[in-house]
Amino acid sequence: MAAIIKRVIPTLDRILVRRAEAANVTKGGIVLTEKGVERMVEGTVVAVGPGSRNPQSGNYIPIGVKAGDRVLLPKYGGTRVEMEDKKEYVLYREADILAKLE
Amino acid sequence: MAAIIKRVIPTLDRILVRRAEAANVTKGGIVLTEKGVERMVEGTVVAVGPGSRNPQSGNYIPIGVKAGDRVLLPKYGGTRVEMEDKKEYVLYREADILAKLE
Amino acid sequence: MAAIIKRVIPTLDRILVRRAEAANVTKGGIVLTEKGVERMVEGTVVAVGPGSRNPQSGNYIPIGVKAGDRVLLPKYGGTRVEMEDKKEYVLYREADILAKLE
Amino acid sequence: MAAIIKRVIPTLDRILVRRAEAANVTKGGIVLTEKGVERMVEGTVVAVGPGSRNPQSGNYIPIGVKAGDRVLLPKYGGTRVEMEDKKEYVLYREADILAKLE
Amino acid sequence: MAAIIKRVIPTLDRILVRRAEAANVTKGGIVLTEKGVERMVEGTVVAVGPGSRNPQSGNYIPIGVKAGDRVLLPKYGGTRVEMEDKKEYVLYREADILAKLE
Amino acid sequence: MAAIIKRVIPTLDRILVRRAEAANVTKGGIVLTEKGVERMVEGTVVAVGPGSRNPQSGNYIPIGVKAGDRVLLPKYGGTRVEMEDKKEYVLYREADILAKLE
Amino acid sequence: MAAIIKRVIPTLDRILVRRAEAANVTKGGIVLTEKGVERMVEGTVVAVGPGSRNPQSGNYIPIGVKAGDRVLLPKYGGTRVEMEDKKEYVLYREADILAKLE
Repeated sequence: MAAIIKRVIPTLDRILVRRAEAANVTKGGIVLTEKGVERMVEGTVVAVGPGSRNPQSGNYIPIGVKAGDRVLLPKYGGTRVEMEDKKEYVLYREADILAKLE
Repeated sequence: MAAIIKRVIPTLDRILVRRAEAANVTKGGIVLTEKGVERMVEGTVVAVGPGSRNPQSGNYIPIGVKAGDRVLLPKYGGTRVEMEDKKEYVLYREADILAKLE
Repeated sequence: MAAIIKRVIPTLDRILVRRAEAANVTKGGIVLTEKGVERMVEGTVVAVGPGSRNPQSGNYIPIGVKAGDRVLLPKYGGTRVEMEDKKEYVLYREADILAKLE
Repeated sequence: MAAIIKRVIPTLDRILVRRAEAANVTKGGIVLTEKGVERMVEGTVVAVGPGSRNPQSGNYIPIGVKAGDRVLLPKYGGTRVEMEDKKEYVLYREADILAKLE
Repeated sequence: MAAIIKRVIPTLDRILVRRAEAANVTKGGIVLTEKGVERMVEGTVVAVGPGSRNPQSGNYIPIGVKAGDRVLLPKYGGTRVEMEDKKEYVLYREADILAKLE
Repeated sequence: MAAIIKRVIPTLDRILVRRAEAANVTKGGIVLTEKGVERMVEGTVVAVGPGSRNPQSGNYIPIGVKAGDRVLLPKYGGTRVEMEDKKEYVLYREADILAKLE
Repeated sequence: MAAIIKRVIPTLDRILVRRAEAANVTKGGIVLTEKGVERMVEGTVVAVGPGSRNPQSGNYIPIGVKAGDRVLLPKYGGTRVEMEDKKEYVLYREADILAKLE
């Protein structure tokens, strides 16, 4: 499956994330709220794009997270990508990632 | 619990705040209005992101508040994050923070 | 009370204003209109933020009014902050202040 | 009354204008239309702000009209300010002024 | 009447145009469509403003048409100005002018 | 008729196009779809404006198509201009042109 | 048919893509989801434009994908172009391409 994931290279400032299993309490101690204004989930970054473009020079501005990072994600939004391993993969823009979990 | 909070690192210009208990008069003398156009609450900054990106150079523009600051917050908005300690944590963008309380 | 007001430090280009009592004719000769498209009120600046950020350098652009200035304010908008002294305090963005009164 | 008007100092790119009496034909030969898509009125500039801010340097960009200029104004919009002399005063942004009349 | 027109000096990137008489076929061979998505009319530029402002330096960017130019105009939009000569005058922003006719 | 077309000089980034006859299969092999989300048509550029303005310097940024180019056009949008020759002419902004056909 | 495709040259940051046949599992192992928020499809880039324009210099900023690249596409959006070979061709803006597949 690693071979498959490696095949997806997000464009620009997009980030491919594998969402964590829905659990009430994660290992990091984050409880996924059911009653908040906006629900969140946790995930692991599997691939990042080159970054958004500097409109002057056309250079890419590198993304602030990298493959392997655990991240907090908004519940809604993103674009879902299904792989053969039946895990839940979602593409986000960098600005949609809420936080890194360390 | 401090260990848990340290694990959440907001991205870009996001700020993680622990909201104060709802009280009619805070120790700082701020009365939380019930009749205003937009209600406010008080909180304490627990973690700040690296800041928003300069679209030219890609450098981060540091955030004007820091962990430990007491801040005035809009009642609505932000993204709630629940921790094991049952306190109320909310992620805001820097521009949503209304004022520092000293 | 001065001690309390000093404790509120607006962020970015926000300005904390104490609204004047509603009076038909102010000492400065400004009659607060009741029939205009947008009603106005008068107030006194009590605290100003560091200013908005220059998106290139991240430096603050200083605000054009200062504590003590008497200002014309739009009737609607702003975020209300109640203090122990029962006066009416409102947070505005710099661009919302209509005029200084000298 | 001149003393009163001098007391109002518009902020940023705002312009304080005293509207002319509603007349079918002005001395300058401009007939105020009753049937156009957007009706206009004539006025005299009484005070101008320092101008809008250059977002890079924070310097003010001076305004292109000055006190004493006669101007064409849109009928709707602006923020009305009533003075003791019962004339009609309105605050506009520079970009809302349609033309100078010479 | 030329004296009157000279008195109107558009602000910024505004352009004062005298609309042509409604005719099915203009001298330039342009048939004014009745069935298009957006109907057009022809006119003659009588006065132009100094141009829009460069947000960095505050300098004016000169306008690409000049007094005397015949232009294609959108049917709707603009701000009508009536003069004593009963002709139809309209103020447009430069970007609203569709084409020059030579 | 060439004389007439030459008389229309689009402003800024506008492009005057003569739409092709509605045909199911063009000479270039492009079949005009009837079932797509957005229908397209083919046309020939007859005149181009000087280009949009650089907001810093006021210089024109030249347009990427030229008179004589065959282009793919969105079915809707643009501003129709009728000429004496009863062909269908439409003014577009440069960014609305979908592709060149060679 | 290659001759036909070569004839379509997208403008600016547009990309012409030939969509893949709808299949539940692609050769690359990507399962096209039926239940996601936004469904995706796979395609092959057949032609790319010169890129969007630098608003300062007018230079083109090259596009990050090239002819032959396999790409992930949003299900909705884009502008359909039908060719004689009855394949499904769609024009996208560069920012709409979700990922490259390698």
